Amino acid sequence: MTSLLSVTSAANPTVKALKSLHLKKGRAESGLFLAEGARLAIEAAELGIFPDVLAVSAAAQERPHVRAFVTAALKAGARGIVTSEAVLAQIGKRDNPQTVIGAYRQRWANLGAWTPADEGARAPLVVALEGIRDPGNFGTIVRTADSVGADAVVLIGQTCDPFSVEAVRATMGSIFSVPIVRAEFAAFDAWRRAAGLLLVGASLNGDTKADWPAERGVALFMGNEQSGLSPELERACDHLVRLPMRGRADSLNLAIATGVLLYDVWRRRGYVGARP
Amino acid sequence: MTSLLSVTSAANPTVKALKSLHLKKGRAESGLFLAEGARLAIEAAELGIFPDVLAVSAAAQERPHVRAFVTAALKAGARGIVTSEAVLAQIGKRDNPQTVIGAYRQRWANLGAWTPADEGARAPLVVALEGIRDPGNFGTIVRTADSVGADAVVLIGQTCDPFSVEAVRATMGSIFSVPIVRAEFAAFDAWRRAAGLLLVGASLNGDTKADWPAERGVALFMGNEQSGLSPELERACDHLVRLPMRGRADSLNLAIATGVLLYDVWRRRGYVGARP
Repeated sequence: MTSLLSVTSAANPTVKALKSLHLKKGRAESGLFLAEGARLAIEAAELGIFPDVLAVSAAAQERPHVRAFVTAALKAGARGIVTSEAVLAQIGKRDNPQTVIGAYRQRWANLGAWTPADEGARAPLVVALEGIRDPGNFGTIVRTADSVGADAVVLIGQTCDPFSVEAVRATMGSIFSVPIVRAEFAAFDAWRRAAGLLLVGASLNGDTKADWPAERGVALFMGNEQSGLSPELERACDHLVRLPMRGRADSLNLAIATGVLLYDVWRRRGYVGARP
Repeated sequence: MTSLLSVTSAANPTVKALKSLHLKKGRAESGLFLAEGARLAIEAAELGIFPDVLAVSAAAQERPHVRAFVTAALKAGARGIVTSEAVLAQIGKRDNPQTVIGAYRQRWANLGAWTPADEGARAPLVVALEGIRDPGNFGTIVRTADSVGADAVVLIGQTCDPFSVEAVRATMGSIFSVPIVRAEFAAFDAWRRAAGLLLVGASLNGDTKADWPAERGVALFMGNEQSGLSPELERACDHLVRLPMRGRADSLNLAIATGVLLYDVWRRRGYVGARP
């Protein structure tokens, strides 16, 4: 078994490789993304997910739970470095960097690989996002999807990169537990029909009352931050919903609207599966 | 009546004064804050709120609705400049700047000035935030508070500056329509008791069921992003609520939790006052 390499210079090739993951190009070429924090790394490890490349501060490596994680990661094939806070700040591109930073393989889930039969009696719940642009919104939606036990987040059309540092940060670790799917609308629509899911679109043309049976599987379909769902995709929906509004605001933030609607769907199912 | 001064250099004192509002020091010394966008400026004007200082692009000023706004703003005592997109980009500190940028007086609402009697039969709804740190969360919460017709957002303890550019951007204009209050907890608590509002705190120690009468006035009390409500303030609450959770996520983003809880309170009131 190898061990971590001690590195003091930011000119080290591993440091450079990790820094390149802040750019879309670096992520596209390597197929990796950055996730920061010892807690995140340990939670991912519990799911059997280890980084390809790892950077750890010398101080953190002394802590028993970090040491155990590093041992497991090396055993799983990770390579990496032990370095200073200053170098970690360069990798994370921020002051007060996390003491563990990992480069993980980007994992895309496949609609075909998942069928509602896997879910037993529970009605599936999927979030589909058309043309989402803001990585913070995306990451927050993944975190919320995780919180209500949604089965997947599906990206439709041209969207922000779900593996950008900002997006991953906003997921607060849920990037490792929520399947992320990229699909053309036609393929997604065919899949959800075959799986028996209602397509429920959020739209200003929608109804403020959810009037489908609570036990039905749902794909909640949210449009772009500026323009909402495109008209042709809106027409493909079985139901259109909108949230009641008062005051002077004319819309909600996309992640807020998604959160309120997801909790509404789950509430109507009696919060099935909630932790005690 | 004066008119706008034509300015081509970023070294102009008005440009410098506007740029200084990106910094807390500049905002504190002037008592002003930046709000960007023609639509925002026109909506604020509809509420009778005009900027003290104004910067408009030469192209935008040709548009009739912007021209009408500028005329009204000058009449209300604003002064300002017509300038290039390049200078506006420097004022807004971003590419593709808005074509209208205003410096508005920071307005703090006063708990004493507002009593539930003003609200007629409608049960008041107030959001109180202890120690909120993230300006994006704050702004998004103000936007959501506006959307459900909340009466005020109250800042308790040490918080982010509600008038930072990032916070104001996230409010999407609701900074002009939602009263923002800063208060010590003791004063706020005395006020809400006198006004007959239940203090409902969000807490991991809370109940997942809202078990107070829907018609009661509510002050929804949310804690800090990292640590939640402090124990002594939690003890002052009449009810503690928490949102059901499943999956691996152990918490929701603060703005999402606030949004889901606000919509839940409003839903229990039958979405009273919602726009048709």
